[in-house]
Formats: sequence, C-alpha cells, structure tokens
Amino acid sequence: MGSARKLVTYDGRFRMHRAGHLESPVLAYETWGKLNDARDNAILIFTGLSPSAHASSCAEDPTPGWWEDMIGTGLPLDTDRFFIICVNSLGSCFGSTGPASVNPETGHRYRLSFPVLTLEDVAESAWFVVQELGVDVLHTVVGCSMGGMSGLAFCVRHPENVRSFISVSSGTRALPFSIAVRSLQREMIRSDPKWNKGRYDVGDPPITGQRLARKLGMITYRSAEEWVQRFGRERSTDHARIEDQFVAEFSVESYLENVANKFTGAFDPNCYLYLSHASDLFDLAEYGGSLESGFKRLQLERVLVIGVRTDILFPIDQQRELAEGISSVCKDTQLAELDCIRGHDSFLVDMDAFRPVICDFLA
Amino acid sequence: MGSARKLVTYDGRFRMHRAGHLESPVLAYETWGKLNDARDNAILIFTGLSPSAHASSCAEDPTPGWWEDMIGTGLPLDTDRFFIICVNSLGSCFGSTGPASVNPETGHRYRLSFPVLTLEDVAESAWFVVQELGVDVLHTVVGCSMGGMSGLAFCVRHPENVRSFISVSSGTRALPFSIAVRSLQREMIRSDPKWNKGRYDVGDPPITGQRLARKLGMITYRSAEEWVQRFGRERSTDHARIEDQFVAEFSVESYLENVANKFTGAFDPNCYLYLSHASDLFDLAEYGGSLESGFKRLQLERVLVIGVRTDILFPIDQQRELAEGISSVCKDTQLAELDCIRGHDSFLVDMDAFRPVICDFLA
Repeated sequence: MGSARKLVTYDGRFRMHRAGHLESPVLAYETWGKLNDARDNAILIFTGLSPSAHASSCAEDPTPGWWEDMIGTGLPLDTDRFFIICVNSLGSCFGSTGPASVNPETGHRYRLSFPVLTLEDVAESAWFVVQELGVDVLHTVVGCSMGGMSGLAFCVRHPENVRSFISVSSGTRALPFSIAVRSLQREMIRSDPKWNKGRYDVGDPPITGQRLARKLGMITYRSAEEWVQRFGRERSTDHARIEDQFVAEFSVESYLENVANKFTGAFDPNCYLYLSHASDLFDLAEYGGSLESGFKRLQLERVLVIGVRTDILFPIDQQRELAEGISSVCKDTQLAELDCIRGHDSFLVDMDAFRPVICDFLA
Repeated sequence: MGSARKLVTYDGRFRMHRAGHLESPVLAYETWGKLNDARDNAILIFTGLSPSAHASSCAEDPTPGWWEDMIGTGLPLDTDRFFIICVNSLGSCFGSTGPASVNPETGHRYRLSFPVLTLEDVAESAWFVVQELGVDVLHTVVGCSMGGMSGLAFCVRHPENVRSFISVSSGTRALPFSIAVRSLQREMIRSDPKWNKGRYDVGDPPITGQRLARKLGMITYRSAEEWVQRFGRERSTDHARIEDQFVAEFSVESYLENVANKFTGAFDPNCYLYLSHASDLFDLAEYGGSLESGFKRLQLERVLVIGVRTDILFPIDQQRELAEGISSVCKDTQLAELDCIRGHDSFLVDMDAFRPVICDFLA
C-alpha cells in the first residue's frame, strides 16, 4: 500500500510560540483536488489530537481516511471544487516533527527536550505548508475538536489570509472539566513505570498508561445516552477477557477494552502528552486580554459553528459562546446545534448529521 | 479521641448472596438517639461507597461525621425523635469485615479470597445489626448513592420490615457510563504494580492507582458547571507541585491533587475494588426479571426520591425512573429534583438544599 503523504521541511529555525525553537522541522500533509488558477479554492483542515494527515483515501493510498465520508467528489468538501489540505499537527507522530522525532541538533530523539507545544505552533506550521503550496488566502479553514482551536488560532493570527471558518465540536478554550480529564490522562501515562520520565524504550512503551488514558478518552468522547441504548446492562460474551472478578462482565467494559487495544501502540506517548497539554493551554482570551478582544481580531466573511448537544468535552454552551462571539464581528455566522447521540465523536461517526450542514455552508 | 463505633459479630457462617460465605463476620455501626418503647422510631442509613459508620458526631466521638449537618437535635434526622443507625458496609474497611480483614478460618487477610460482594450482602448484614438492636420494623431506610441501591435491596428483600424509604442520588441499577467509570477506576488500581494481584504490602499500598481512581471519581462526583464557576481557567498558585511541564498549571488540577492526597491511604484498595464492583452488579430487575417485577415486591407506605440535575453518575432520568416505578406500588411517592450545581456530591456538600426536603418528608 502506498502513501499519499508528502513532506516539506521548514528551512532553518522554527521559533515556538512560548519559548525555544525547532531546527528545520518537517511537516507531513496530504492534499485532494486541485488548486485553481485564481488560487482561491483552498481549504485547510486542522485535525483533532490523534489523527494523521490522511483525512481521506486517494489513488496513492486507498485506505479510508479519518474523515472519509466528508471529502471527495460530490461530498461536502468537494474535491471537484476545492483544493483540500490536511497537515499532521506539529508535535504529532505521523510524519511531522514531534517529541518522537530525532532532533537534528543532537542526533537524539527530542522526548521531553521538545519545547512546550501550543496550538499556535500547530497553526503557524500549517501556515508554512499552505504558503509552500502557493496559497496566500484560504477559502476556508476547517477545524475539528482540538483542531477547531488550532483553526481559531490561525484565523486570529492571520486574519487576512482566511475568508471562512468552520469550527466543528470545539470552542474558544478548554474548560476545567476537560482540563481535568486531560490532566488525568497525562498522569495515567506518566504514572506508568515504563514511561520512565519520557525515556521509554520505543519498542516497549507505557502501554498500560496509554490504555487507561484511551479508555478515559472514550468515556468523554461518547455520551451516556448512547451507551444506555447501545449497551444497557448487557453482559459481555467475550469471556476470554475475564481475567479476574473485577473486570469485563459488562459489554461496555469489553467495548472499551477493544477500543484501547486498537489505539495503543499507534500513538507515541510523549507526542500525546504534548498535544494534550497544548489543548489545555490554548485560550482565545490571550489575544488582547479577553474573549471579546480575541474575537475582534477576526476578519472572517462567513463562519459556521457546529456542535452536538450530547458533547461533554466541548459542551453545547461553548458552541453558543463561540458563535455569539464571532457573530459580533462577522454577521454571516451560523450555529448548528445537532441532536446526535454519540457525543463529541459524532463528527467522526454520525456523518449523516454533519454532511448536510457543511454541504449547505460550502454550497 | 474516643470512638462511638460498636461492633457486633454474626455468629456462624454468613452466606453470601452470590456464592461462598464469611465465617463470623463483624459489623461496625454507630447509633444516635434512643429506640422508643414501641420500637417504631428506628432509621437505618446505608452509606455511599467510601464512608464509615460515623455519620455524625456524638459525645464519645466529637469529630464531624460524613452527614453531620443532617443528623442531630432539630435536624432532619432528628435524634430527639428517631433512633438512627448507620452500619459500615460489609466489605468496607472501617470496622466491618472486608477483604482487608483476617479470615478466622485461615488466619490470613482475605484479600482476593473474599467472596464476590453484592449490595444484597450489604443489606442483609445491616439487617442483622438492626435485629440485634431489637428493631423488627424500621421507620425509614435512607440510602445515599451506592447506599440507595443497598437500601432498595433491603426494601425489596424485607418488604414487611420497613415502612418508608428515602433514596438520595441513587437509582435502580448502574448504567453503562457509571459502570465504565468504575471499571476504569478498578483497572487503575489493578494496573499499579504495587497492587500485586491484591497481595500488596499493607504498609506500601498501590497509592498511584488509588490516586488516579480518586481523581476520576471526583471528576464524576462534581459537575462541569460547578468547576466553570469555581475554577474557570485560573492558574494554580501552588507552584511547589509543578513537577514537570505536563501538570498542575491550572487550579482544577491542584484541587484534584489535594483531594487525591486526602483520600489515599484512608481506604483499603481491595475493599474499594469489591465495593465498586458490587455497585455495578446490583440490578433491581433481578427480582423477578424486570424493574416492574422488582418494584412490585415493595410494600412501602411512603417514599422520597431525591436527585440532582447536574449529577452525571446517577443522572436525573434515573431519579425519575425510580420515583415513577415506586409510585406504581406506593401512592405516597415524592420526587425532589434539586437544582444543586455540585453534581452527585451535592448530598454531602449542599445541605441547605437537601435538609428541607428530607425534613418535610419526616415531619
């Protein structure tokens, strides 16, 4: 199986938003469709915490992408009309430079010597990729979950280089419930003796901590209502998993077990820690001292804010706050409150609800 | 400081609900007020997962109890009117026999040889204490959180021995969200190498796993709304705690740290595992095959169901389900939906909201 991933190297020192720098970092990205002659049909997608740049399949890589049903001919992100770019976030581990990468200045993996990562760094490094592709003004920035905040960082820092913004299940900043959850996920990984203060053996990573963190993640990515319908108090038939008297009696426990098994090993633990922490740090209010001053820096022509009523990670109140704030500086701001039952993850799994809203906005 | 705790030994084999037995288990309890001559003024309190029998202070033990502001002269559980009994749950570690106790048949701690614990066992062992105290019919059974399910188990198994029931922030059974949370808490403890399959050194228990489990507990015991008001994105001033770049930047993180530090060491890890698992196992529908058949076994004269709208562990829908189900067999059933902001823990911390409701019911 081929890869559609392209790499581009930032030549020289990339200055990080908080402090420090990366020497000649690499950014991985994929594109779909073609940039038109006017160079005004480019859409940039910022991902959530864990996805790669492979948002959709293509000739070079036919494996389904993480937003497969959203990108393609006749789909909302229509590859016949748009030139679509998705960048693997800086700090991640799917081609872009991150804590798991080798620091060219030392010849060793960065690990915890990687500078503090912020979503501003994610935004700026994506902007570098966009410019390399010959685009000066983006038709639309789309950001999902953490990516919505990266997108907001982009729009507030490059107001003249973006016309429209779609925020999907995100917000202006993390609230204490989400901070508490992510902080605990990080502590789970750091508490695993195999983490070894970030100096784990890459072939023997802190799987136990990662599994716990992933399970807690799933508990907050979905909704209690969905699980009542889906699992109720059904018992697991997967008796092979019953290790002792405290585990895997209920279907919901087996489900979490399967989810954790799939994810673990696929994501570098230090990269996870950095990106999770970056999600907590972002705050639109840092632009001028208040959310209001942050919103005032935007020069968007059209905005769509989509959220889900059962989302507990970026609850519906945050969607309203975001839409209301942006509407004070951009009249053409739409808020779509969806009744999906699958919580925060709905944008990945309930495509029938999301597609028409994004389709209408981009029509 | 003295103790008001009294101990009573069950003479002989106590048969456990699922399988197995305990040889001559001990039950710890405390009482307040006096049993009247008619022996009809006794109230039995079933606790949540972690409290001891010390629900309120008294002459022998003036330290505040876990429901201090609810029990006493002129308070809702009025010690001038009622004889109040609180039993430390079987399986716990505050005087009653549990996994941390020595098995008289072997001379060693039970640890994981303790039989599967159910809330039926908690209910039956409390019933033994009640009878020992000379009470045949209880004026009221009160159960909080897990204790609400223990109380329901009691009422359905001893319908002729209880007249009224107060369920506080509980339900007919655990739903998959709560099961998932508790299952993950148990996995956190079991994943700590120091747990050692239950054979930990009592002087060096799996503190790390217990801390993680306690933090996850607090995330579900409180509400996102409370934390927005209480912490927002305030930064911690407690810089001594900042171990590395991934922790304790936000006040909510310091708060969880302090909470975890207080709890850990106070509760035996194996006892926690057994009680947590028992909370998942209970299901009123096991009485006859459906919730309806379970409700039909009740012979209560009056019932009060209290719940909190911000509770995510026993959400308000479960309060309604419980009240509706009981009202089909007991006309005098009241449902109190409280607007407290502090989630599941409100019954411990928002006494001004709970006191009048319970006071009116018992007036």
